[in-house]
Amino acid sequence: MISKKMKPFVANNSAVRAMFEEGNKLREKYGADHVYDFSLGNPNVPAPKEVNQAIIDLAQSADPALHGYMNNAGFEDVREAIAQSINKRFGTAFGARNLIMTVGAASGLNILLKSILDPGDEVVTFAPYFVEYGNYVSNYDGVIVEVEPDTATFQPNLEAFAGKITERTKAVIVNNPHNPTGVVYSEETIEKLAQILEDKQQEFGTVIYLISDEPYRELAYDGVTVPYLTKYYANTLVGYSYSKSLSLPGERIGYVVIPDEADGAAELHEAATIANRIIGSVNAPSLMQKVIARCLDCTVDLEYYDRNRKTLYEGLKKVGLECVKPQGAFYLFVKSPVENEKAFVAKAKEYNILLVPGSSFACPGYVRLAYCVSYETIVNSLPAFERLMENYR
Amino acid sequence: MISKKMKPFVANNSAVRAMFEEGNKLREKYGADHVYDFSLGNPNVPAPKEVNQAIIDLAQSADPALHGYMNNAGFEDVREAIAQSINKRFGTAFGARNLIMTVGAASGLNILLKSILDPGDEVVTFAPYFVEYGNYVSNYDGVIVEVEPDTATFQPNLEAFAGKITERTKAVIVNNPHNPTGVVYSEETIEKLAQILEDKQQEFGTVIYLISDEPYRELAYDGVTVPYLTKYYANTLVGYSYSKSLSLPGERIGYVVIPDEADGAAELHEAATIANRIIGSVNAPSLMQKVIARCLDCTVDLEYYDRNRKTLYEGLKKVGLECVKPQGAFYLFVKSPVENEKAFVAKAKEYNILLVPGSSFACPGYVRLAYCVSYETIVNSLPAFERLMENYR
Repeated sequence: MISKKMKPFVANNSAVRAMFEEGNKLREKYGADHVYDFSLGNPNVPAPKEVNQAIIDLAQSADPALHGYMNNAGFEDVREAIAQSINKRFGTAFGARNLIMTVGAASGLNILLKSILDPGDEVVTFAPYFVEYGNYVSNYDGVIVEVEPDTATFQPNLEAFAGKITERTKAVIVNNPHNPTGVVYSEETIEKLAQILEDKQQEFGTVIYLISDEPYRELAYDGVTVPYLTKYYANTLVGYSYSKSLSLPGERIGYVVIPDEADGAAELHEAATIANRIIGSVNAPSLMQKVIARCLDCTVDLEYYDRNRKTLYEGLKKVGLECVKPQGAFYLFVKSPVENEKAFVAKAKEYNILLVPGSSFACPGYVRLAYCVSYETIVNSLPAFERLMENYR
Repeated sequence: MISKKMKPFVANNSAVRAMFEEGNKLREKYGADHVYDFSLGNPNVPAPKEVNQAIIDLAQSADPALHGYMNNAGFEDVREAIAQSINKRFGTAFGARNLIMTVGAASGLNILLKSILDPGDEVVTFAPYFVEYGNYVSNYDGVIVEVEPDTATFQPNLEAFAGKITERTKAVIVNNPHNPTGVVYSEETIEKLAQILEDKQQEFGTVIYLISDEPYRELAYDGVTVPYLTKYYANTLVGYSYSKSLSLPGERIGYVVIPDEADGAAELHEAATIANRIIGSVNAPSLMQKVIARCLDCTVDLEYYDRNRKTLYEGLKKVGLECVKPQGAFYLFVKSPVENEKAFVAKAKEYNILLVPGSSFACPGYVRLAYCVSYETIVNSLPAFERLMENYR
């Protein structure tokens, strides 16, 4: 009864569901405290108290416009306030005209891709990568092109990159800080990447948009700088989400930025605003738009994630696991001690440790750990990792 | 720079924007009180006070799960509560398993269509109809098939309907109560429509889903009954929204129902849940899901709309305009006194009256009036209509 395009998703979903149910069975059998579930990228640090206070204040105002329709691009005052906040932080010169409020970054990427992709157009991204990129590109009959990973640093593999760009390349998606590796792309990397794109635009006489997916922008540690990409490459489009910075993943609130400098910026802004309507989002949730505008200087408690990061990284190193030390997001991407990382994931499960195989990110031989869990889970998991690793000595 | 598919939307959008700006110019010149804007289907009656109270109570609870991810189908307790509420009102037997919470009805229709349509599949709908249906169908490369209107009653034209169903017909979309006519489909109509679909399923050996788009379900007057379509035809899928019933259009909260009786119900539920993720919605806004579950017995002040309806209908009749008396939604669909209704719309603008041409709903010769405006606007508009109609005597 279902469409050909959806059939493989449904078939594959039973595997995901099976994994999820196995986790539940472990929790039932051993108790939730004795299962070390690193499989879910679901923020465990609560939203800052300012968020709930803003919700209360707005609901008490009972302004009828609070729950009403607005321009499909979002409330103008909210877009202007966010633009000014970005400008203050990154020295940009955006205004409300450059932003569209979206139903999370997922809708943001979708409205950008719908606006620019013709069937067969190519979108390049760097392995390992978030599997939904492929699905979003496929929504518009585009083709995802993977660049093989540089496993030494997990910075984008720029040599391989240049060879993947063709006349059909319409966009490149980067994710910074990065899921699943936690790596932050350095300014040097960004500058080289921008230069390659400039050269290729000239070589082919095309426009190549760089889509920067930034849900983890605020989750950066060790004082590292996360470059703002519009400053390095004119055809940069940004997708942002408050899911992680304010721990609001269920609320579906984010935005895209289309700078004036981008080719066809005004037309693209109009197309993406219409796409917001046509894909069914219509607009970002109205109350949450207003809440965000009151919480622009807030973030979740980053110290919590940072302690988790250090403890888990050091703990895993001690038991002999290898991993590029992450400076952002809330993930560690660990080299499997055996080539077939799915076997390692299965073995880990015997020790009540739940991991995600790198194959799910187009990067076999590695596993992803999401450390957005309680600190106790991390501390308690370390002896289990110790016992797990005894199998590989 | 933008995709071929989006180009006509952008081209057409400038006409919409021009209309909107003309309205603003009129308001600037004559004052908002002297412009009678019937062009927007934006609820003007505020959300019930219970909604803002539920928002405050939930935010005060500061439950960390309030803003978190959940199953892409939505919170199970919310789905179960809504299912029980539907069961109580309509004698159905739904459970959480039959519902998916969605980013408004627009996302709901999109996830259903994405789940069932292969390129070239046909979706039948009855003119006049909401123009977005065509866009949603086109998102999945389906083909919209229009049934010509029965302008005597604006009930669906069932004779013409039977001839439009082919082997490629995958779905039929109905909208009850109806935008733009305000008509409520009678039980007799629904029974005949169901019989035609049963016969055609048998004739072609196919499954044809009846998608009932019901954002106006609660907006019914004169004690009229709005039949619950799953009781008349097994392959019925329902799309619902709280945009009108609770005046929350900006919040993007609704659901779809996939009854157990529908062909392939479990697989379809799974596909539509995955589609919710892939189209970029991911899930319906989490706080609003919980709010809805606390406001299941609330509706906006229907008396306000009803008074508007009666006053405008009687007033227009008095000046010689013809219209099927609407029993639902907040629209009147009025016969243009001249064949070219766009000329009538232009003439009306000279009297500061803003209308939408029926061509925008695939039904030229008529105009739509949205009476979700202040009562004063309606009362004050009647002398302007009187003067307008002097042109046609």
